[in-house]
Amino acid sequence: MPLVRVSLRKGKPAAYRKAILDGIYRAMIATFNVPDEDRFMVINEHDEADFSYSPTYFGINRSDDLILIQLTVSNTRNVEQKKALFRRIVENLEAGPGVRPEDVFINLVEVDPANWSFGYGLAQYVADKT
Amino acid sequence: MPLVRVSLRKGKPAAYRKAILDGIYRAMIATFNVPDEDRFMVINEHDEADFSYSPTYFGINRSDDLILIQLTVSNTRNVEQKKALFRRIVENLEAGPGVRPEDVFINLVEVDPANWSFGYGLAQYVADKT
Amino acid sequence: MPLVRVSLRKGKPAAYRKAILDGIYRAMIATFNVPDEDRFMVINEHDEADFSYSPTYFGINRSDDLILIQLTVSNTRNVEQKKALFRRIVENLEAGPGVRPEDVFINLVEVDPANWSFGYGLAQYVADKT
Repeated sequence: MPLVRVSLRKGKPAAYRKAILDGIYRAMIATFNVPDEDRFMVINEHDEADFSYSPTYFGINRSDDLILIQLTVSNTRNVEQKKALFRRIVENLEAGPGVRPEDVFINLVEVDPANWSFGYGLAQYVADKT
Repeated sequence: MPLVRVSLRKGKPAAYRKAILDGIYRAMIATFNVPDEDRFMVINEHDEADFSYSPTYFGINRSDDLILIQLTVSNTRNVEQKKALFRRIVENLEAGPGVRPEDVFINLVEVDPANWSFGYGLAQYVADKT
Repeated sequence: MPLVRVSLRKGKPAAYRKAILDGIYRAMIATFNVPDEDRFMVINEHDEADFSYSPTYFGINRSDDLILIQLTVSNTRNVEQKKALFRRIVENLEAGPGVRPEDVFINLVEVDPANWSFGYGLAQYVADKT
């Protein structure tokens, strides 16, 4: 069920952007109990004036290749699983398309399992009483 | 107070997109205790490389007409209300602009009523102590 | 750690948009216990059909200059801090670039401090047990 929203600067080729989504998707499958094919991901590309970041916060040397990743997920994972997800996303994106580990920013938003509908207007993660 | 963010592929006419927002808005009024005129909605249109989804997850046959709907709402509704909202959104969007029920993905993000300001920098949903 | 997403109508110059982000950033530093340089902000610019709002909700007279601000933050502030943030954002944006207080909509999404990674795939806000 993750809904993944990636924000980055305009100008990267489609193959690069596709590789980012693939890397995040594979990390979720491998570390976060996300089932195969549970893939709903979008990218927003931004002009310079619409993309503002600190090049130094937390002592990390970021560049214009920074990728902001926001994943909305069910609230069913513990801290160790979150850490594993973060590590794996960074490893995958470094392997391809070649994003520096300094340039990966990740944020999780957690919601109740009842807060998802995957089609037909049903809440697939909660049992139906009717 | 819902803040509604819709993501879809580029290429739909303005009337189609407007009908999507109208359908979601009417569903919130009808099923989710949302007052009239409480309407704050945006659409992000995406290139193919920026919009990635599973055409099969949960056994649902999705197409490029898929609509990803994320509603940020106050945490004041129960599961039955959520189910009613999901159903109604899908019914409305099928009636107009004609979205297939398989192509409607919905996610709710719930927040505290204190987390909203509708103007003037006030937190309109919490009583002012000063 | 705030991740700030601003949505507005297309057509504002870059300096105007940059001033919006600067004003929000300074408000977070001043009122919300956000450290210097903790800045991760994006703007989405929308066509008319992709940006829909009530011009009257809560008796507030909004215009097409409306700015929808969604801040994802750690769940560590109280209501008074939220109110102070809202007030300061509105004051700052009125001072420059000159946004009407009626045209500032703010929403907070709160998450656990473990839900952030600022680079290197680490969860910088939670102690490492390994």
